[in-house]
Amino acid sequence: MSGSGYVRTIALTPPALGNNTADAQRLEQAVKKEFTTGFVHIPRALTADLPMRLRKWHWRAKVVLFKDRRSVVVVDLLDPEDAAPVLGAAVDIGTTRMVISLLDLETGETIGETGLDNPQADIGPDVLTRIHHAGTPAGREQLKRLAVSAVNDHLAQLCRDNQVTPDRVFLVAGAGNTAMTHLFAGLPAFGIIQEPYIPCTNIPDTLDAATLGLTIHPLAQVFLFPNIGSYFGGDLLAGILAADLDQKEHPCIMVDVGTNAEIVLGNKDWLMACAGAAGPALESGVSQMGMTAKPGVIDRVTVDPSTRDLIVHTIDDQPPVGICGSGMIDLAAALFVTGRIDIRGKLVPEACGDRLTDEDGIPTFELVPGSGSGTGRPIRLSQVDLNSLTSAKAAMYTILEVIVSQTAGLSFSDLDRFYVAGTFGSFINPASAITIGMLPDIPTDRFTVLGNTSLKGAQLVLTDPNAFDRVMAIRDTITYIELNVNQGFMNLFSGAKFYPHTDTSRFPSVKI
Amino acid sequence: MSGSGYVRTIALTPPALGNNTADAQRLEQAVKKEFTTGFVHIPRALTADLPMRLRKWHWRAKVVLFKDRRSVVVVDLLDPEDAAPVLGAAVDIGTTRMVISLLDLETGETIGETGLDNPQADIGPDVLTRIHHAGTPAGREQLKRLAVSAVNDHLAQLCRDNQVTPDRVFLVAGAGNTAMTHLFAGLPAFGIIQEPYIPCTNIPDTLDAATLGLTIHPLAQVFLFPNIGSYFGGDLLAGILAADLDQKEHPCIMVDVGTNAEIVLGNKDWLMACAGAAGPALESGVSQMGMTAKPGVIDRVTVDPSTRDLIVHTIDDQPPVGICGSGMIDLAAALFVTGRIDIRGKLVPEACGDRLTDEDGIPTFELVPGSGSGTGRPIRLSQVDLNSLTSAKAAMYTILEVIVSQTAGLSFSDLDRFYVAGTFGSFINPASAITIGMLPDIPTDRFTVLGNTSLKGAQLVLTDPNAFDRVMAIRDTITYIELNVNQGFMNLFSGAKFYPHTDTSRFPSVKI
Repeated sequence: MSGSGYVRTIALTPPALGNNTADAQRLEQAVKKEFTTGFVHIPRALTADLPMRLRKWHWRAKVVLFKDRRSVVVVDLLDPEDAAPVLGAAVDIGTTRMVISLLDLETGETIGETGLDNPQADIGPDVLTRIHHAGTPAGREQLKRLAVSAVNDHLAQLCRDNQVTPDRVFLVAGAGNTAMTHLFAGLPAFGIIQEPYIPCTNIPDTLDAATLGLTIHPLAQVFLFPNIGSYFGGDLLAGILAADLDQKEHPCIMVDVGTNAEIVLGNKDWLMACAGAAGPALESGVSQMGMTAKPGVIDRVTVDPSTRDLIVHTIDDQPPVGICGSGMIDLAAALFVTGRIDIRGKLVPEACGDRLTDEDGIPTFELVPGSGSGTGRPIRLSQVDLNSLTSAKAAMYTILEVIVSQTAGLSFSDLDRFYVAGTFGSFINPASAITIGMLPDIPTDRFTVLGNTSLKGAQLVLTDPNAFDRVMAIRDTITYIELNVNQGFMNLFSGAKFYPHTDTSRFPSVKI
Repeated sequence: MSGSGYVRTIALTPPALGNNTADAQRLEQAVKKEFTTGFVHIPRALTADLPMRLRKWHWRAKVVLFKDRRSVVVVDLLDPEDAAPVLGAAVDIGTTRMVISLLDLETGETIGETGLDNPQADIGPDVLTRIHHAGTPAGREQLKRLAVSAVNDHLAQLCRDNQVTPDRVFLVAGAGNTAMTHLFAGLPAFGIIQEPYIPCTNIPDTLDAATLGLTIHPLAQVFLFPNIGSYFGGDLLAGILAADLDQKEHPCIMVDVGTNAEIVLGNKDWLMACAGAAGPALESGVSQMGMTAKPGVIDRVTVDPSTRDLIVHTIDDQPPVGICGSGMIDLAAALFVTGRIDIRGKLVPEACGDRLTDEDGIPTFELVPGSGSGTGRPIRLSQVDLNSLTSAKAAMYTILEVIVSQTAGLSFSDLDRFYVAGTFGSFINPASAITIGMLPDIPTDRFTVLGNTSLKGAQLVLTDPNAFDRVMAIRDTITYIELNVNQGFMNLFSGAKFYPHTDTSRFPSVKI
C-alpha cells in the first residue's frame, strides 16, 4: 500500500486455491494492515461491485478511506491509474460566516478556499432565533437545506474555479459550535438553550453525504466534529487539534474569543476547558460603532512616540467607518498608556482635552472626527463602551486566572505557548491585550495567533488519519470546568477591572 | 433496564445541570451498561427524533436493539407502554425451499411459521443457472427481488394470520448457503463457482432492511449469516449455533446431508469442518423413484420379525408413490439384515425370490407392486440405485473417518453427541444408517436429529444477543479441512463400500 493519508494505492494478493478469502475480506485485510482500527466497513453498494473492479484492475486499486468511530470506512475504490484528483472539503460552519476549503487528499494541499455568509441568517442572525425555528421538522429541514445548499453551490463554484468536479469530492469535514452543528445536520437543537442545556447529540460522527443532501460523490462521507456540551462545540475541538494542544509536552493554553471566550488548557497528559460569556463586549455589541472586520474598519491603534497622538490603521487602508474588537483593545491600551484613561478605566478630561465631548451626559472620546471618517460621522468611544470593555477584559483575565491558577495550580509563566484562535484573535495585538490587563503578562513571543482553527482542524481530519482518533480521545478525556461565578470569582474580577490590575506586580512589563 | 433479548425497557437518568450529557450519548451509555460491545450506533434518522421521544416518555423507552460486527445498533425507540408485539423474522434461505418463522422478540416465542418454494427456481432450479443469471446487474436485481418479494408476501400473510402487522417486524436473520446468501443480497456470485472459488463477501453482516427491499419496519435491520467459503455457508454456521457445538465440553459432531455432506467436529475449544460430495446419491438423484419427502413417500422401512417381510411406512399414510433418502437407508438396512443383499451390497437372488426381476439386464428389487402403489406403477430398487447408495454411504463413512480419526485423532466412541441436521437428517433412522455402515457404530442414544438448523440458528440470532458474537467467533476460529481424495482416502473408501464394512469389528452392534 502506498500513500499516507486517506487515499492509498493497494495491491491485493490475488486469490488462489490455497488462499480463497472472499473479495471483501481480502480488501478488509489489506486495509487493516495499514490501520490499527479493529473493523473495516465496506458499504453494501461498493461490495456489490467489488468482484468486477478487483478483477478488472488485476487486484490493484486506489482506495479512498475514511473513519467513523467504529471502523475504517472504504468510501470508494478507483482504478489505480485514475489520475483525476481525489478531493475533500473542509467547512467552518460559522454562525455568521462559513468558509469552505477544497483539498487534494493525495497531496494534502489546499486547492482553493471560499467564504460565504451563513444563509441561515435569513431565518435569524442569532442562534436563538434559528433554534426556535428548528422547533418543527419543517424548520429543521429548512435550516439544514439553507446551509447544505449554500455549501453545494459554493463548493461547485470552487470546483469550477479549479477545473475539478464536485463528484470527485469524497470526504467532507465540518466544524461548528454545537448549535450550528445540530442545525447543519438537521437535528433538533432546543435542548441546547433550555436548562439543563442538553444537546441532541455530542457525537454526530461520520454520516453519508447523501443523507445530508450534499451533491458530491454519491458515496461521500461527512464528518461533523463532536461537541463537549451545549457551550463547548466542535469548533473548539477542531481548534485543539489545529493547535496540537493534545500533543504538547508542556502546558499550553488556547483562547478562542467569539461570542463566548472559550479556553482550553493542557498538554499531552491532560486537558481542561471552560467557557465564559466574555465575548460580546469585545465583538460588535461593544459600542455604537463596534463592528466585525471589513474594509474601513479600524483594526489597529498605535501611539506616535513623539507626539503621543493616536494613529489609526484601517483594513485595506480605507477611510475609517468603525472599529472592531482588536482595534478596541489597541485603543484602550493607547488611551491608558497615554494617560487618557486612568487605572479605573475612566476617561481623564485633562489628558483627553478637546477630544472629550459630552453626549447626553456621557463622556465620549472622539477618535476620528466626522470630517476624517468614511461615513461623515465621527468615530467615538463613550465611557459606557469603555466600561463594557473593562468588564470584558476583566472577565477574560479572571477566567484565565481561575482555570490556570486556581484549577490547574499553575502560574501564567508555566504556559509554554498561548494560542489565540478565532476571527477576533486573528487581529489581536497581544502587547495591547497585556497592557490593559486582559491577557497575562508573559513574553509576547509565546503568543501565537492561529487564525481560523475550525477550518484548520477540519482540514487536518481530512488529511491525517490520526486526527480522527485524536479528536475522539480529546473528547473523551477533556475535563470541562463549569465556571462558578461565586464570591471568590467576583473578588478576583474586581481586581481585574483595573488597568492593568490592582496588583500591578502581575504586569511588570506594563510601563505607563 | 429490563429484558434479556434485544428488546429492553430502559429508564435513563434524567438530565440535570450537573449531568448534561447529550440525549444520544445518554442513550448510548444506558445501552452500554447492558452490552459489553464497545460502540452503540444510533442511526441519524432516529437521533433526529430522540430529544422529543425521550422527553415525551419521561426518559423511559422500550428499545429495540441489534448488533452488527462493529456495534450494538439501536433499531428503534418505542413508547415504554407500547403493548403491540415486537417481532422478528427468521428465514431459512434454501435453494429449493425457504422457511420463514415469525418470532415475538420479547418472549422469544415463535408465533408462526410458513414455507415456500424459492421463487428463484423460476430462473433455474439449480444454483449454477442462477449464478450465471446473476452475471449482470439486472440479473442480480431480478434474483434478489424474486426472493425478497416472496419473503415480503409470505411474511405479510404470516402477519395477517397472526393478527400482527409487518411494520412491527424490526429484525430479520437469514441463513443460507454461500450462493443463496449472495443472491438474496443481490451480490455477484460468479466467483463461487469458478476456480479458485472466491465469494464476493464472507461477511454480509447486518444491513438495512430497506436496502434489500424488505417491506417491514422502515428502520429494520437484517442479519445474513456469514460464510466460511464458497462451499461452507451461513446455513452451516447457523447449524453449529443451533447445535451449540461451540459450547460443548466434550467433542461432538454435526453432519448436515444435503447436496453435500457437511461435517463439523469440535467443542468449546476447537472446531473443524469439511464438506464432501456425498449427498446427491442420498437425495432425489438416487434412483428412478427417489424423491424428497411429501405425502405418499416411503420414509420408513422395517422388517416383520416373524415373517421377515418388509413393512413400508409412508408420509401421511398415503398410498406409496416413491421413496426418499431416509426410506432408502432403511430399505438397504432391511435388505441387508434379511440377507437380501450381501456384504458387497449386491442383491441375492435366492433371498429375494420372486421380488427380484430383471429390467433391461439389471437386477431390480420390487418393494411395492404396481397394484399397491399410489401411481399404479411398482416401486423398485435396482442394483444401479443400490450401487449409488453404497458409494454414498461409503463416502460418508470415509469422510467421518478422515475427519474424526485421521484429522482430529479421536475415535468415534469419543463423540459425546452425534447431531444430524438438514431436511434429510430429519427423517433418518440412526440404527439403519449404522446397519449399512454409513454412520459409525456408537450408541443410538447419542444421535440427535436437529431438523432445520438454518432456521433454528437464525431464530437464535434474533433472540439471544450472545448468538451474534458466537457466530463471529465460530467463523474466526473454525478450521476448514480441504478433503484430499488421495490413495489413502480411496483405500478407506474401498473398505467402507462393504456392508457394514470389511472390518466388521467396527460395527459390533450389527447382527445379521
